[in-house]
Amino acid sequence: MTKISIITIGDELLIGQVVDTNSAWMAQELNKAGFWVNRRVAIGDDRNDILNALDEEAEGSDIILITGGLGPTADDITKPVLCEYFNTTLVINEEALENVRNIFVKILQRPLIERNLKQAEVPASCQVIQNKRGTAPGMLFEKNGKVFVSMPGVPHEMKGMMTEEIIPWISTRFGKDFISHRTLLTAGVGESTLADHIRDFERSLPPGIKLAYLPNYGMVRLRLTVTGKSATGLESQLEHVFEDLKSRVPEWLVTDEDIALQEVVGKILNARKQTLATAESCTGGYVAHLITSIPGSSRYFRGSVIAYDNDIKKKMLGVDPAILSAYGAVSEETVRAMVSGAVRNLESDYAIATSGIMGPDGGSENKPVGTVWIAAGNAREIITQKLWFRFDRQRNIELTAVNVLNLLRRFILSRPPVGVLRDLIN
Amino acid sequence: MTKISIITIGDELLIGQVVDTNSAWMAQELNKAGFWVNRRVAIGDDRNDILNALDEEAEGSDIILITGGLGPTADDITKPVLCEYFNTTLVINEEALENVRNIFVKILQRPLIERNLKQAEVPASCQVIQNKRGTAPGMLFEKNGKVFVSMPGVPHEMKGMMTEEIIPWISTRFGKDFISHRTLLTAGVGESTLADHIRDFERSLPPGIKLAYLPNYGMVRLRLTVTGKSATGLESQLEHVFEDLKSRVPEWLVTDEDIALQEVVGKILNARKQTLATAESCTGGYVAHLITSIPGSSRYFRGSVIAYDNDIKKKMLGVDPAILSAYGAVSEETVRAMVSGAVRNLESDYAIATSGIMGPDGGSENKPVGTVWIAAGNAREIITQKLWFRFDRQRNIELTAVNVLNLLRRFILSRPPVGVLRDLIN
Repeated sequence: MTKISIITIGDELLIGQVVDTNSAWMAQELNKAGFWVNRRVAIGDDRNDILNALDEEAEGSDIILITGGLGPTADDITKPVLCEYFNTTLVINEEALENVRNIFVKILQRPLIERNLKQAEVPASCQVIQNKRGTAPGMLFEKNGKVFVSMPGVPHEMKGMMTEEIIPWISTRFGKDFISHRTLLTAGVGESTLADHIRDFERSLPPGIKLAYLPNYGMVRLRLTVTGKSATGLESQLEHVFEDLKSRVPEWLVTDEDIALQEVVGKILNARKQTLATAESCTGGYVAHLITSIPGSSRYFRGSVIAYDNDIKKKMLGVDPAILSAYGAVSEETVRAMVSGAVRNLESDYAIATSGIMGPDGGSENKPVGTVWIAAGNAREIITQKLWFRFDRQRNIELTAVNVLNLLRRFILSRPPVGVLRDLIN
Repeated sequence: MTKISIITIGDELLIGQVVDTNSAWMAQELNKAGFWVNRRVAIGDDRNDILNALDEEAEGSDIILITGGLGPTADDITKPVLCEYFNTTLVINEEALENVRNIFVKILQRPLIERNLKQAEVPASCQVIQNKRGTAPGMLFEKNGKVFVSMPGVPHEMKGMMTEEIIPWISTRFGKDFISHRTLLTAGVGESTLADHIRDFERSLPPGIKLAYLPNYGMVRLRLTVTGKSATGLESQLEHVFEDLKSRVPEWLVTDEDIALQEVVGKILNARKQTLATAESCTGGYVAHLITSIPGSSRYFRGSVIAYDNDIKKKMLGVDPAILSAYGAVSEETVRAMVSGAVRNLESDYAIATSGIMGPDGGSENKPVGTVWIAAGNAREIITQKLWFRFDRQRNIELTAVNVLNLLRRFILSRPPVGVLRDLIN
């Protein structure tokens, strides 16, 4: 099996100033193409650490993918260190130079300065991978049967090179496995209980199939992975085992695809040709953001009122001031009124509402930080739920969003589609 | 200098199903306490890979922090592998058992099953770190002068252990350095031009101070880092050099703190006791989410209308239907009308608006995917900007948000505060 290491270079990764999202994307794309990433290593902009990492990863892996440290400034030392490692020197690459010129003169309409020209320098012994989305070219080296590829750390530049050049290239040169995953999402059950519930299933798994538990935000994802020499037989075996798994968790099953909850909700709404609006207080637009992060969401998403201030709840959602003064903004009555107001004012089939105290401040004895009310409903009916979280603002916002989307999903699925309902009434 | 490695364990990290945010947080907190992370390694749930990583990291580092693989299910193999590595066996830890019991019986009110009890098993030779936020205890081992700490991968559980137990413990045992960063954010200038502009500054930097360029979303962060044996002299030297750097980039300077743009805007609004609302089409609530991710934002943030559908633009923001039919939703005229409507209907001092085609579909010849109009203003005046992005939906949403927040910042700062304006008028 071909072994791959990813090395990311940059002090910003080691002091925690930047979260590395590149590696996850690279691993996903490589998986799809039949390659497995064995190790990921992050190091700083330090000559010795880079040289050591190259040596170490070359020992255990066939392909070493490197990102970062290719900028035009003095802290970016990857290029000279690669020259040292591969015992070569920097030369100007004419095609890369033309690309840099084109980007500055035609696209950015900025004067080209000497420093920009240095972006077109590459180690003489490398195979140059042109960068169609930026100035720093990629570089491919071969040494003792191992392949090293250095790419810029800017995510969309790296992604372009990986998709268009690097994955196709290594696919023709290295042995690929058949790798396939099937993932389902459950809600309403803990990891341990779930594991006990499917203990017999897990024990009887065929040797080539691996089961993983991925708990997150009170939901648990179950992933089956099959790996082998070719797709023949394995694909149908995985499918068979996956159907078995699904049949064992019907009461908790949210989706049998590896998609987020907002995409599950979007698919249900699309299928029913119905629409959604949100009325958000404590989530501050995060639920709307999740929904609109899905391409095509404009087909079923009408919009939102983010009512951070109580004035907005009254004015834009028609929440009765008497409700707010009697029960407070964080109450079952208020989230009910927010759903009604959103369905009416935003003219949607369904609406969801959130109101809570996200922290770190703003709690009281009766309503401590982490107290949240959520609601989901339509013009006829509304269901609500109280949630208790803790002190982490970001986590509370995310947990509230996931819970309210799941509440909506349960609400919609437990009600017959409007067409059927009309048939029943008429 | 004490050297630290972080090892994260879990197949989900290697197939890209989960982005590792733990490592960045750990590195930040360690930095604050005077420790530097030298390497971060991610590996799968594989016995050999775990044993190799422990050996390799112990060779170069003094402290090895490990997260992940401590769950109650069969794919979590970290605990048995640690037993093998440290040549010990699993025993029940009474305090951890009491904690597990407490969580299930009192907090979750779920029956305790056999599998949960296994969470209280720890290798006999370790020092147990109790988990106040979950069931899996942390484990601290010492071997040949090196310290190994294994923690759960659930972020808020790991964070509790690091803050309350592990960082204080290693602070008393290992030599700390003085490490300090100062970061400023610039907008409106490319990395190369900026580097040329401050070339003399960079050349004259004292040896203990390092300059880094961090470009992101068309803005560039400049970070100065000083490292040394003690704070004496270094803190004031860094301060002096940082002031020098600031004085060289006044026209591009956004903030001299290491904070996000939404926090910069929040501070300006707080200082002026003024309020903000957003009227979002293409960003779908993401700008409101960024603003409300800041604790205390309820002091200056009124709320938003997310007008994904044109009906909502008309009804909730009062956008003239004639404007929409004459110029379309993605137009300067529409974002102007959205700002006016938001200031009026959401009763705020300022408002910002976004409308664009985020992709991957929905573009036309005249308005291709990536065409965005943004606006910022108050009841008297509105400024607008057209943006051209490309095909990546998530990136387009993020770029639009950053640009509209910066447009607002420029708008507010270029206008005198209301108090002063009143003085001038009266």
